[in-house]
Amino acid sequence: MGEVGGTMFYHDDELQYEVEVEEPNPQFAKMLQQAIGGAEGEMRVALQYMFQAFAIPAEKQEMRQFLMETATEELGHIEMLATAVSKNLEGASDEAREAAREDAVIDEMMRSGQPRQALSAGLHAMPVDSNGVPFTGNYVVASGNLAADLYANVMAESTGRLLATRLYEFTTDPGMKDMLEYLIARDTMHQNQWHAALEALGEHRPVPNSFDQSKENQEYNYTFMSTAHEERENPEQPWTQGEAPDGKGEF
Amino acid sequence: MGEVGGTMFYHDDELQYEVEVEEPNPQFAKMLQQAIGGAEGEMRVALQYMFQAFAIPAEKQEMRQFLMETATEELGHIEMLATAVSKNLEGASDEAREAAREDAVIDEMMRSGQPRQALSAGLHAMPVDSNGVPFTGNYVVASGNLAADLYANVMAESTGRLLATRLYEFTTDPGMKDMLEYLIARDTMHQNQWHAALEALGEHRPVPNSFDQSKENQEYNYTFMSTAHEERENPEQPWTQGEAPDGKGEF
Amino acid sequence: MGEVGGTMFYHDDELQYEVEVEEPNPQFAKMLQQAIGGAEGEMRVALQYMFQAFAIPAEKQEMRQFLMETATEELGHIEMLATAVSKNLEGASDEAREAAREDAVIDEMMRSGQPRQALSAGLHAMPVDSNGVPFTGNYVVASGNLAADLYANVMAESTGRLLATRLYEFTTDPGMKDMLEYLIARDTMHQNQWHAALEALGEHRPVPNSFDQSKENQEYNYTFMSTAHEERENPEQPWTQGEAPDGKGEF
Amino acid sequence: MGEVGGTMFYHDDELQYEVEVEEPNPQFAKMLQQAIGGAEGEMRVALQYMFQAFAIPAEKQEMRQFLMETATEELGHIEMLATAVSKNLEGASDEAREAAREDAVIDEMMRSGQPRQALSAGLHAMPVDSNGVPFTGNYVVASGNLAADLYANVMAESTGRLLATRLYEFTTDPGMKDMLEYLIARDTMHQNQWHAALEALGEHRPVPNSFDQSKENQEYNYTFMSTAHEERENPEQPWTQGEAPDGKGEF
Amino acid sequence: MGEVGGTMFYHDDELQYEVEVEEPNPQFAKMLQQAIGGAEGEMRVALQYMFQAFAIPAEKQEMRQFLMETATEELGHIEMLATAVSKNLEGASDEAREAAREDAVIDEMMRSGQPRQALSAGLHAMPVDSNGVPFTGNYVVASGNLAADLYANVMAESTGRLLATRLYEFTTDPGMKDMLEYLIARDTMHQNQWHAALEALGEHRPVPNSFDQSKENQEYNYTFMSTAHEERENPEQPWTQGEAPDGKGEF
Amino acid sequence: MGEVGGTMFYHDDELQYEVEVEEPNPQFAKMLQQAIGGAEGEMRVALQYMFQAFAIPAEKQEMRQFLMETATEELGHIEMLATAVSKNLEGASDEAREAAREDAVIDEMMRSGQPRQALSAGLHAMPVDSNGVPFTGNYVVASGNLAADLYANVMAESTGRLLATRLYEFTTDPGMKDMLEYLIARDTMHQNQWHAALEALGEHRPVPNSFDQSKENQEYNYTFMSTAHEERENPEQPWTQGEAPDGKGEF
Ligand SMILES: [Ca+2]
Ligand SMILES: [Ca+2]
Ligand SMILES: [Ca+2]
Ligand SMILES: [Ca+2]
Ligand SMILES: [Ca+2]
Ligand SMILES: [Ca+2]
Repeated sequence: MGEVGGTMFYHDDELQYEVEVEEPNPQFAKMLQQAIGGAEGEMRVALQYMFQAFAIPAEKQEMRQFLMETATEELGHIEMLATAVSKNLEGASDEAREAAREDAVIDEMMRSGQPRQALSAGLHAMPVDSNGVPFTGNYVVASGNLAADLYANVMAESTGRLLATRLYEFTTDPGMKDMLEYLIARDTMHQNQWHAALEALGEHRPVPNSFDQSKENQEYNYTFMSTAHEERENPEQPWTQGEAPDGKGEF
Repeated sequence: MGEVGGTMFYHDDELQYEVEVEEPNPQFAKMLQQAIGGAEGEMRVALQYMFQAFAIPAEKQEMRQFLMETATEELGHIEMLATAVSKNLEGASDEAREAAREDAVIDEMMRSGQPRQALSAGLHAMPVDSNGVPFTGNYVVASGNLAADLYANVMAESTGRLLATRLYEFTTDPGMKDMLEYLIARDTMHQNQWHAALEALGEHRPVPNSFDQSKENQEYNYTFMSTAHEERENPEQPWTQGEAPDGKGEF
Repeated sequence: MGEVGGTMFYHDDELQYEVEVEEPNPQFAKMLQQAIGGAEGEMRVALQYMFQAFAIPAEKQEMRQFLMETATEELGHIEMLATAVSKNLEGASDEAREAAREDAVIDEMMRSGQPRQALSAGLHAMPVDSNGVPFTGNYVVASGNLAADLYANVMAESTGRLLATRLYEFTTDPGMKDMLEYLIARDTMHQNQWHAALEALGEHRPVPNSFDQSKENQEYNYTFMSTAHEERENPEQPWTQGEAPDGKGEF
Repeated sequence: MGEVGGTMFYHDDELQYEVEVEEPNPQFAKMLQQAIGGAEGEMRVALQYMFQAFAIPAEKQEMRQFLMETATEELGHIEMLATAVSKNLEGASDEAREAAREDAVIDEMMRSGQPRQALSAGLHAMPVDSNGVPFTGNYVVASGNLAADLYANVMAESTGRLLATRLYEFTTDPGMKDMLEYLIARDTMHQNQWHAALEALGEHRPVPNSFDQSKENQEYNYTFMSTAHEERENPEQPWTQGEAPDGKGEF
Repeated sequence: MGEVGGTMFYHDDELQYEVEVEEPNPQFAKMLQQAIGGAEGEMRVALQYMFQAFAIPAEKQEMRQFLMETATEELGHIEMLATAVSKNLEGASDEAREAAREDAVIDEMMRSGQPRQALSAGLHAMPVDSNGVPFTGNYVVASGNLAADLYANVMAESTGRLLATRLYEFTTDPGMKDMLEYLIARDTMHQNQWHAALEALGEHRPVPNSFDQSKENQEYNYTFMSTAHEERENPEQPWTQGEAPDGKGEF
Repeated sequence: MGEVGGTMFYHDDELQYEVEVEEPNPQFAKMLQQAIGGAEGEMRVALQYMFQAFAIPAEKQEMRQFLMETATEELGHIEMLATAVSKNLEGASDEAREAAREDAVIDEMMRSGQPRQALSAGLHAMPVDSNGVPFTGNYVVASGNLAADLYANVMAESTGRLLATRLYEFTTDPGMKDMLEYLIARDTMHQNQWHAALEALGEHRPVPNSFDQSKENQEYNYTFMSTAHEERENPEQPWTQGEAPDGKGEF
């Protein structure tokens, strides 16, 4: 029966990447929360890749490890961003925080729609998005079908990189820009790695490709259906004519 | 100033596709709820495509209409599935429902963990998933970036088709199989049409491609980072060597 | 078995009512979100009437159509309000948005507690309320009992019209006032139509009227119970004396 | 400055109404949860009337007290139902609960989709609905407009009484029937009292009646708009012709 | 069968403590919402103690009453804070509220990320937190195990008092300071009373103490496990050496 | 500026503890979900300790590491339990899953109120609780005050160990018992370590102890307030007389 094989996750005191903030900015701290606990954030990808890995059977160990190693990397991104939030909320000394009434940082925090950051979290990161809505397990897609999961990952890294580039435009702080240049680079890599894994799957569309397509209704599986109130001509778009991308039908 | 230009959405009394159930099955009604109000369901895609369409500027009218027409089609799928839920819960006459104690169908409903369907909805469809968790706006991805949105749509139709094929395996009812053959066919089409639209975008990766990649940290944007506790050799996988799928880097 | 009878919902490119904004105002965009994804908003009524219609049996076709036609109209209101949100967030050109740091509109958006609108949605409408809380299926009331549903509709249109009149007071923009004058008018109509339908039901109180009232505890069904800590005299209010509104008891 | 005026709420050890269960039934316990923490439940009405009362200005003391006394009564209903849940889950002695594996009652609980009741709450009531979804502040309607609030209350008591009568049909236990006869009677009273209060308001429609109706769009405020895909004749229903119920327009 | 034993909860018109506000401050109103509907707020403790009381068997009447009396006191705190919210949002007369465009209070409300307070609640208290996120039954801990519940209560009063002292630092209003001095005092008492009850339980650790500890894995129940990536020496902390606080093991 | 210091988290392929299941039991799989994504589960403690660690200033490195190392250990517990869920749902081969209709295990899953586990997750672990309600960031307590956080941790480990011991009673599977004996042992340790840390803080009550207690209302900070409807005598309980546990007052 069960034997102890060492712990499964490990932590290193050093940050994956050093996070510095030159001019603390509570507005930016609030925005960074989207990248922690939001639909496009790091908690989502960390947990999504983790639960996807949990579903990979033992005989596909390489894929399981691939997903788990990336999940583990994303845990480090949560820590980087949490550090960035704290540093953007700094400005009052540790003691002065409880007596914070005249503090400009806290005042700004209060005015800007994320008061819980001061009231509930003492000016630190929280598992919520930039509107203060808590992270939810609903964000996690782990379907038990690898192709569907990989598309979910492509999407998560696409909206995640979009968010990071938007954050990049909102800051002039060199430390924050540096951190985001790193995170955006990792998103570039992660988008590419999930695409590479999809390509390695070979022919996999339509997802799931285990379903016998001859059972599909053959009249409707490659036809664009217009729902325009007034009938209109075929707009001759790539989705109304020509070969379907899955190579299995003609629009 | 504003002038009335007619209403925007229209409804037809006839169902998009006739829904028939030979043997009502409350267990299956519960499962069908996943396809209505679940993360992979029709409410999600209908609203997702609608909000994406809202974000398309007027000068890209063809794309806006493409998204909106598919959104509109998905509204019809909600109605089909809602009809299927009601028909699977039938078996007691309309009057007998309030005095339902001895009804075998309702008894089964009660045993199966979705009691709200009887208690709150009088044995009809609800905007909840198969576990009874309410639909949430959080499921909707409408990022304002077309490529990111199209990947979100590919993913939604992939998990959606996966769900429909799983439902297909859980039923032997010819009416339900027929309905699902139609819905699966539409999912095939929708997967293909979003892929076609992505291809039509041309070179769009990494998403968003408007961000100047020379600003990314150049050391980390095309490198797989291992987080294995014990160092290990390059596993020589498609994501650790070779050209990156976006054609802009080498792993 | 199933035959295709055309699609069920249709869409028209023209807006139900032309929406114009003279002076974009991101604060007002945020407020308008309440009317899209809030408890009093258009998503709620559109889906509520739709799910109520789904529950109407075939033999009451006129009532089903009544509910569905109004649901369909409300879908158009979502589109109007989404257009209004986008137009209130305009001001930066399409390209300038990604490089938005110095943009006054985005700055205001960021300060005002709805940063997700820029970060997650590229300055467009979202299925959330004015505090950024996502729409939930919990808002939808579709009980399977027509009288209960109609009261839910009266209530939804009452709080909806209240919201619209409050929004009306917060804007001086002639385009926004014009749109709200239209939406408020429709709320007036919808309140009236649900009242008319209740009247047409005839004697229906207490809801549900199918329950045999002789089974109720006869001592407590028409008596106001005071829970005041100090006993007090009958305040001689309409709810402590006289005939009960349902005509079936005496207080 | 502030002076202590005694506590505001008081509690009595005696139950408002004695709750007895002859044959414990865990299935019914699960259903009763809908009446505690569900959209139609007692937590909702207790908190709804309480928050409505909080919004009544001091000079309308009689109305404030009316709402607060009913809110207070509803708190007692939560306690009654919680007692009913516990008694329906009894059957194992207090000690035996932790070693419950062979207990038939707990086994049934486990099978029936509400395992948290055993796992998280030790077989007692929880602030969740019959599907296990937690109570949410979103259920509470307290708009600051008395007429809108009273319609919300009519609706809450209508769906609440509907739920109670459905629960009544699911049980043969004389204790449970007795308790429900009492709660249904109170719902009858509460429906009537809110209707009485609406009548006492006099002319209040359309809600809110403080908005100057001459500002409404006069073309659309009393017209039924058909959204049928195929044009159709006026169905000559009470909502398409005749005087509007608010007495202020003609359909 | 059941007999009426009077209502269970009672209400007194007088506030538990008179609440006064000298200078209305909508920013502070928003913060106070955290103490009403937030994770650390009064709705949570009122309902938590109430559901815990519901789970106490009849033969432990003194403990049940202890929990219920404190629950009842907390209901009064909700009312105090709701009064404080209303008074901080006052400044416009009752009539002027609907025509509020130029009102400074409302303008501030709108800017500050809690627009629902004006739009949905007419400038009154809501069952939401300071970010506008609705109260959820998920906050309530009522485990059916008294020791676990008492620790949950110690925690709730610790974070609750922390919140109240933070609110105290954000205000200079003498009325608000006076109210908070009272509420903080009550939190001091409540922390102490739950600790006193824990002490009265005697030896109760580890919770639950009904589980036979000899069944625990004896190698791991009193050993600190390091998950540091680089092995490190025993830091000689109170949790890595010496006697364990439960007196049942040695670290 | 920033330099890469290695990744922050690492993962080991070996499970922290080998998880074995002799007789797959889908009912138990569902129950185990409570220990993954429930209020008392491992996701909560992993994230709670992590966010608490993020808030510890650099100069208190030992405490930060203490919290982070335990957070990291809890991540491993998620993996153990996810493995246990998968193994309890096994029984059909990998291929047979999509064609699962006749599978007894899946049939049981479907009956038991967690259909999403098959429909959305292909019979694997999900970030939801045993009722299917998704994990929420709301469960995480990280207040920025160490004493408050440690009490939150004592509470989390108390309800967590209670849950684990209840799960222990529901299984006879030797593999599951073995795993739970390990997890219960770790909960014993974690309860003790947080108590040890609280003791090491020295005098810290009432929490927060940075607030000047002379500002509290001195009449009410050490007095039990009865809210009994009928006045009653001092029950002479530990919380109504004697010295308060914080040593700073007399009841
Ligand atoms: Ca990342
Ligand atoms: Ca579809
Ligand atoms: Ca409308
Ligand atoms: Ca009631
Ligand atoms: Ca309190
Ligand atoms: Ca653990």
